[in-house]
Amino acid sequence: MKDLDYSELEVGFDVPAVPGMDEADIQTPCLILDLDALERNIKKMGDYAKAHGMRHRSHGKMHKSVDVQKLQEELGGAVGVCCQKVSEAEVFVRGGIKDVLVSNQVRDPAKIDRLARLPKMGSIITVCVDDVTNVPDLSAAAQKHGTTINCYVEIDCGAGRCGVTTTSAVVEIAKAIDAAEGLKFTGLQAYQGAMQHMDSYEDRKAKLDAAIAQVTDAIEGLKAEGLEPQFVSGGGTGSYYFESNSGVYNELQCGSYAFMDADYGRIHDAEGNRIDQGEWENALFILTSVMSHAKPQLAIVDAGLKAQSVDSGLPFIYGRDDVKYIKCSDEHGNVEDKDGVLKINEKLRLVPGHCDPTCNVHDYYVGVRGGKVETLWPVSARGKVF
Amino acid sequence: MKDLDYSELEVGFDVPAVPGMDEADIQTPCLILDLDALERNIKKMGDYAKAHGMRHRSHGKMHKSVDVQKLQEELGGAVGVCCQKVSEAEVFVRGGIKDVLVSNQVRDPAKIDRLARLPKMGSIITVCVDDVTNVPDLSAAAQKHGTTINCYVEIDCGAGRCGVTTTSAVVEIAKAIDAAEGLKFTGLQAYQGAMQHMDSYEDRKAKLDAAIAQVTDAIEGLKAEGLEPQFVSGGGTGSYYFESNSGVYNELQCGSYAFMDADYGRIHDAEGNRIDQGEWENALFILTSVMSHAKPQLAIVDAGLKAQSVDSGLPFIYGRDDVKYIKCSDEHGNVEDKDGVLKINEKLRLVPGHCDPTCNVHDYYVGVRGGKVETLWPVSARGKVF
Repeated sequence: MKDLDYSELEVGFDVPAVPGMDEADIQTPCLILDLDALERNIKKMGDYAKAHGMRHRSHGKMHKSVDVQKLQEELGGAVGVCCQKVSEAEVFVRGGIKDVLVSNQVRDPAKIDRLARLPKMGSIITVCVDDVTNVPDLSAAAQKHGTTINCYVEIDCGAGRCGVTTTSAVVEIAKAIDAAEGLKFTGLQAYQGAMQHMDSYEDRKAKLDAAIAQVTDAIEGLKAEGLEPQFVSGGGTGSYYFESNSGVYNELQCGSYAFMDADYGRIHDAEGNRIDQGEWENALFILTSVMSHAKPQLAIVDAGLKAQSVDSGLPFIYGRDDVKYIKCSDEHGNVEDKDGVLKINEKLRLVPGHCDPTCNVHDYYVGVRGGKVETLWPVSARGKVF
Repeated sequence: MKDLDYSELEVGFDVPAVPGMDEADIQTPCLILDLDALERNIKKMGDYAKAHGMRHRSHGKMHKSVDVQKLQEELGGAVGVCCQKVSEAEVFVRGGIKDVLVSNQVRDPAKIDRLARLPKMGSIITVCVDDVTNVPDLSAAAQKHGTTINCYVEIDCGAGRCGVTTTSAVVEIAKAIDAAEGLKFTGLQAYQGAMQHMDSYEDRKAKLDAAIAQVTDAIEGLKAEGLEPQFVSGGGTGSYYFESNSGVYNELQCGSYAFMDADYGRIHDAEGNRIDQGEWENALFILTSVMSHAKPQLAIVDAGLKAQSVDSGLPFIYGRDDVKYIKCSDEHGNVEDKDGVLKINEKLRLVPGHCDPTCNVHDYYVGVRGGKVETLWPVSARGKVF
């Protein structure tokens, strides 16, 4: 990764800001990171994982940023990154990340070939497998490139997406991997993605209890074949305490905790508090400006669908109870301003509904501290969907 | 715009395909354009506008592509482009487009300065105004750079977003523009955005009738002050026939007709037919591959929230009644496959729910014809939200 050459970057065309600039001069809409809050979140998760004897492999699909990942490793003790696409893995490897899990299936022949080349660049590469017919293809590519690909067998423990559902299928695939040249069976991928956003702690716990029982059964089945998994990986921002206290998981894959978003923020912890009111801080915001106020009670801001994803609901306006983001169109946000308090060019911080796909529409994070722009980080793997 | 240097672009990392490649080898997920269908759509709208004596200023916020815009000008007789952001206008001007309307308000001082510089590059630049206090700022910037900025006064004729709602406000702003150095009052922006996606032709007509009455009143008010607007601009894919037959509008701003999408496709024409069944063809698709099928009736494809926007609903699978896209998560689409017919690596064409924000998450359009990749067009203004 080359450092950014600011002499080649035009503020307002290429980039929303440059270091040293006052926060007031940032061009909107753009993503800003409250660096103090981000660092506290990262340190907190790192401390939690360490105290519970867990490896933390932070999920890079959320931020898609080599710089954020490095902070997670340096400050939060993360052992490496997870990502979802081969092209993302390539970005992280080229950026110097030494342990990369593609927490997803890779089936296309060209993608398998790219994946198998990556260990040559000095990083440990792991991929998920949920189909025994994938094994010979991965093996052939690893042999072709003289590399080793680590493999996690993926269990569908309730997410209803990729992954096998029976212990016999887990064992069958693990045995095939173990027997294949160039592949190494190193663990289980068991991320329960469907429960992360359930509002109640007890509801989430019930889903995770079921997942833990399923994973425990799979581990027993594997042990019976002499194939004990080295890593049992899973856990998200809405569940990591369950995996950490399960006795079977030993690797976490949390992502959203670092930035927070509106949809995660709404869920409740064991004491019934919103998790964005104590457990985690909002560190990511869409900075937006009022750009029309022709109707007294309706302000229009410049962050619409091309500045965020609204799949998980609208953003909320941070720190303001007097105004409300009520509608989103391509380029505009409608903000209810009952008392007509907003001024043209006034800036607001929006907490996006869903951080992952929101980050993916921006090219940069503007890191701010104390009212100043401290850094500009590329969303290094933005658009890397292949 | 430099032509793409394919020697510097890696398929599967930088780009999804290169010209000459078989369609079967395209890396997914990515956007593909059926060039035959695209050309027919563009020609059809161009012929319609010409036959009705309308200027067509195609909306570039939809495609954000200099190449698509040039095709709209060459094949469809478009007089220029509309866009929504100054940074988009900069992309189109640098790409050689000679007539650019920013169909939006520009209020930030740095953005006003950038806008005022653009006419120096040889393009006509027009911007919308909905607040008389914007006029001195635009005027000062135009004078500073020795340029002329054309101005459309924006009327909110039902969209409930930017724009003034009374004839007196229209006249007040037009007079201020007319009196300001460096500015020229050239027209009215009156796009009724809120009715475009209403299902019934009659419901849409009723909304447009109201808009036409409002615009007619504004024109009368302007004429009384000797300020007849040269251009009266509006109209979208769900309404252009109303504006074209209104006797008051003379400029269309259609965008989605060229690509089509699922949300527009569902609306009905005057005869009660879906507009994607005759009026327009689906030319834009998300090409996606099956990458997991561990459950017999559920296939997982590789196009999720980072390959599209689902603000207007899920995509549908083109040309297939036997399988259905039923759920979208960050990197995955769940496809119901009741009969278990889908194979791993099988490719499907998705028609996205909403084309504009879907195009904005991709870097390239892969133009296909006759099973071959014919061209690769950058989404030139992708991410240009400032």
